Amino acid sequence: MASKVFSFSRRCLSRSPINQKTPCVQHIPSVRQEYSISHKLNRSTTELSEEQVSTLKIDRDRLATDLHHSCQWGPGIRWGQNPTDTGMQRLTLSEEDKHVRDWFVQTMSGLGCNITIDQLGNIFAVRPGRRANVPATFIGSHLDTQPTGGRYDGILGVLAGVEAVKTMVDLGLETEGGIGVVNWTNEEGARFPISMMSSGVWAGKISLEHAYNLKEVPTVASLPTAASAPETVKTALDKIGYCGPTPCSHEATLMAAHFELHIEQGPHLVSAGQRIGVVTAVQAYRWYKLQVTGRDCHTGTTAFQHRADAMYASARMMVKAREVASAHGCLASVGIVDARPGSVNTVPGLVSFSLDIRGPETADVEVVVRQLQQDFDAIAADEGKEIGKPCRVEWQLDFDSPAVNFHEDCISCVQQSAEAVCAQDVGVTDSKSLVRTIMSGAGHDSVFTSKVVPTSMIFVPCKDGVSHHPEEFTSADDCATGASVLLQAVVRYDRQRFQS
Amino acid sequence: MASKVFSFSRRCLSRSPINQKTPCVQHIPSVRQEYSISHKLNRSTTELSEEQVSTLKIDRDRLATDLHHSCQWGPGIRWGQNPTDTGMQRLTLSEEDKHVRDWFVQTMSGLGCNITIDQLGNIFAVRPGRRANVPATFIGSHLDTQPTGGRYDGILGVLAGVEAVKTMVDLGLETEGGIGVVNWTNEEGARFPISMMSSGVWAGKISLEHAYNLKEVPTVASLPTAASAPETVKTALDKIGYCGPTPCSHEATLMAAHFELHIEQGPHLVSAGQRIGVVTAVQAYRWYKLQVTGRDCHTGTTAFQHRADAMYASARMMVKAREVASAHGCLASVGIVDARPGSVNTVPGLVSFSLDIRGPETADVEVVVRQLQQDFDAIAADEGKEIGKPCRVEWQLDFDSPAVNFHEDCISCVQQSAEAVCAQDVGVTDSKSLVRTIMSGAGHDSVFTSKVVPTSMIFVPCKDGVSHHPEEFTSADDCATGASVLLQAVVRYDRQRFQS
Repeated sequence: MASKVFSFSRRCLSRSPINQKTPCVQHIPSVRQEYSISHKLNRSTTELSEEQVSTLKIDRDRLATDLHHSCQWGPGIRWGQNPTDTGMQRLTLSEEDKHVRDWFVQTMSGLGCNITIDQLGNIFAVRPGRRANVPATFIGSHLDTQPTGGRYDGILGVLAGVEAVKTMVDLGLETEGGIGVVNWTNEEGARFPISMMSSGVWAGKISLEHAYNLKEVPTVASLPTAASAPETVKTALDKIGYCGPTPCSHEATLMAAHFELHIEQGPHLVSAGQRIGVVTAVQAYRWYKLQVTGRDCHTGTTAFQHRADAMYASARMMVKAREVASAHGCLASVGIVDARPGSVNTVPGLVSFSLDIRGPETADVEVVVRQLQQDFDAIAADEGKEIGKPCRVEWQLDFDSPAVNFHEDCISCVQQSAEAVCAQDVGVTDSKSLVRTIMSGAGHDSVFTSKVVPTSMIFVPCKDGVSHHPEEFTSADDCATGASVLLQAVVRYDRQRFQS
Repeated sequence: MASKVFSFSRRCLSRSPINQKTPCVQHIPSVRQEYSISHKLNRSTTELSEEQVSTLKIDRDRLATDLHHSCQWGPGIRWGQNPTDTGMQRLTLSEEDKHVRDWFVQTMSGLGCNITIDQLGNIFAVRPGRRANVPATFIGSHLDTQPTGGRYDGILGVLAGVEAVKTMVDLGLETEGGIGVVNWTNEEGARFPISMMSSGVWAGKISLEHAYNLKEVPTVASLPTAASAPETVKTALDKIGYCGPTPCSHEATLMAAHFELHIEQGPHLVSAGQRIGVVTAVQAYRWYKLQVTGRDCHTGTTAFQHRADAMYASARMMVKAREVASAHGCLASVGIVDARPGSVNTVPGLVSFSLDIRGPETADVEVVVRQLQQDFDAIAADEGKEIGKPCRVEWQLDFDSPAVNFHEDCISCVQQSAEAVCAQDVGVTDSKSLVRTIMSGAGHDSVFTSKVVPTSMIFVPCKDGVSHHPEEFTSADDCATGASVLLQAVVRYDRQRFQS
């Protein structure tokens, strides 16, 4: 504890409104939230000194408790003995997602926030500032997960927002503009195959109609009937009661800026022993659905030269994709594969697969795509040529996210905050070594918010760089460091807006 | 018409009991069945001269009509304008399969046959011979199809049996032993993943318990709930009312021999312009399920060297499988692929795929399997080695069918009959050029019957050698030639048994 202002004693239980209704917390023995606030600021951000801002920090244990509490809805694959040693499987707009949304709304209402739910189920919770009629500065991320996801991707970003507001309430810290926390619907794109879907609609980059009509991917769908009667985004929203009345638009729900805390999902911070990544940019990526058409035939009677085997051609394409992407410093990945008719003794005549291509710059991705289009055409033409019925390959672009550069004002707030938070542990001189600027490999809701409002992100390390996996893990200390940087960043941004 | 014995006039409609209840036949304009029987033999097979046997032939148009009539249940993908220009999708033990079974039972009962249905729904229809207490000579094949199958694979074999019995009835041709037609359940192995399942149980090579408990493959299942609540063979049998009381065993339902007419499903006959393949053997094959385990990770943040990508490793294995099989004169095919978790932006950590390996001799298949086991282990070890978590690959043998040699007595009956039938069109001298001995690439129910009774098969050409495809096609003339060979073969076999 570097600052006396925020010393917590461990005498008083149940100060948090959350604690009063969290029966499941008792099974997480390592995390306790016995604390009381001994000093209140009772000021606005603009009335703090720079030193006071630099010592602001959130409550590590309360954040951990709340985070694992929220993970009671949709626990996934168990990988260890501790109660929290499970992944998450909380597909967007599922029953589990409804439960965590209800919890989020209740929690934020209990903290004095106004709740807005828009047409895509985005939940905006705003703690009012001193000034009416100015847009709030937002903290945002997502509560949905991959089908075999972990406890931190997205969840940490929203829970850190909840914790930042709790800390402000506890401290009596007012803001000039409001401070909001937003839970974006279907960031993952796992159940409905467009990632960052609802921030995309909010930013005006995806049409509401398109989002509403998206059908769930059968393989990861929440319902067993998904293959025959897939739900759409709209039916799923209606089913869980989260289709709100407010238009999903940045013109309807205003935002001054968007800050997002996220696990890195890569190995750079953890390899370098660093604590905070100041995210300045997001790499470009495109999602394609490829369809390879050959000809069904009998596996036992058809010589190789008489085949137009769509699976064999697809396998060659998958191997080629890595080779070409690698040569251009990019990534290419196949996540979904569907071979038809899907019988052991019939050579598939129709295969579709997803292709996710990423690179530092938009142009890098374009180069890889052009090269692969040529290569795949050649592979397709080669398979079935001897029977005069070569395979064909068709590309369908499902999603295009050009490279993004974040806003310098937001980056600056994050950079200052990161150094300030780290300085409390290692001193000002060494704090810079714990912080690095970094490019995001993954897409995030901040990609879309950056199109219309100043945006930046904060990364914290995750174990082995692993994400989209049940064993995804970030320590409670790292979560807390990130959340404190987040708190200070929004405070700094609020001060910047209204101090001058 | 080379023989006066079987000249048909076109005066009399509706001689066939089938025609009286086939409302759908009217939409098949090219096929008519106006005929009457002008000459009756009214003899037993042993009382015929060799010349009379050699002129026996079935009714081409009636066979075509009945075949397409039976295809009203479970029509598949449409590929042309004519009413019969569709494939078939009649998965075993489906509602459509029940309908065609009902038709088969009614038709054969109407021809004076005794019907036996065993515990696996195999339907044995026997037209009694002159001698009691001797097993019947059987004609057999299957009425189920692949999910994107055609109108001839299996169906022709059963319908040719029906037509052979109709011809015998029309001619008053009696046999010494009975003549049976059997429809074997789940030959395809498409819905329940063991091919030739019920002939295998009948022959004592697969246990009834194992067959009963087989679960349907979700991708080709008949019901939308298959993924969550897959039916078993037993529940499916009960559902359509075809779980009979007779034990499924060659000791309960006796058979003197088994003859099967089938389309070649390969290009040899059609390429050589030949009409009949005398099948002397069936190549060896094995079905494996492979499971490749890697580690789920994020597609956007995980460098290639940090991945244990189960899909990439699987794609390399699929490419390698063809290379190795080809080098050993064998075939290797991947028909089913399942990548988990199945999300665009998660690298799959678990992939399973089917591998069907075939070769002329059992030893050839063994060599390929041993080589691939080494190669796949190396590919798996290579993917993920830099993070110390290489992929693993596991092989599960689902089905093993060693190479089969058919019985020389049966082969001889088929050979003589093939030459005799062809001689009617081109004369005795040239007839041999239209007939070849051939090895079957595909498995058939005859593989299992050959384990316990004398067996052989007859192949007819199919267009482009294509099968397991909606456009699978064999002309009415070729179907008729094959069915006449089949008729003569069982007559010759009956004579052989009882003449000496």
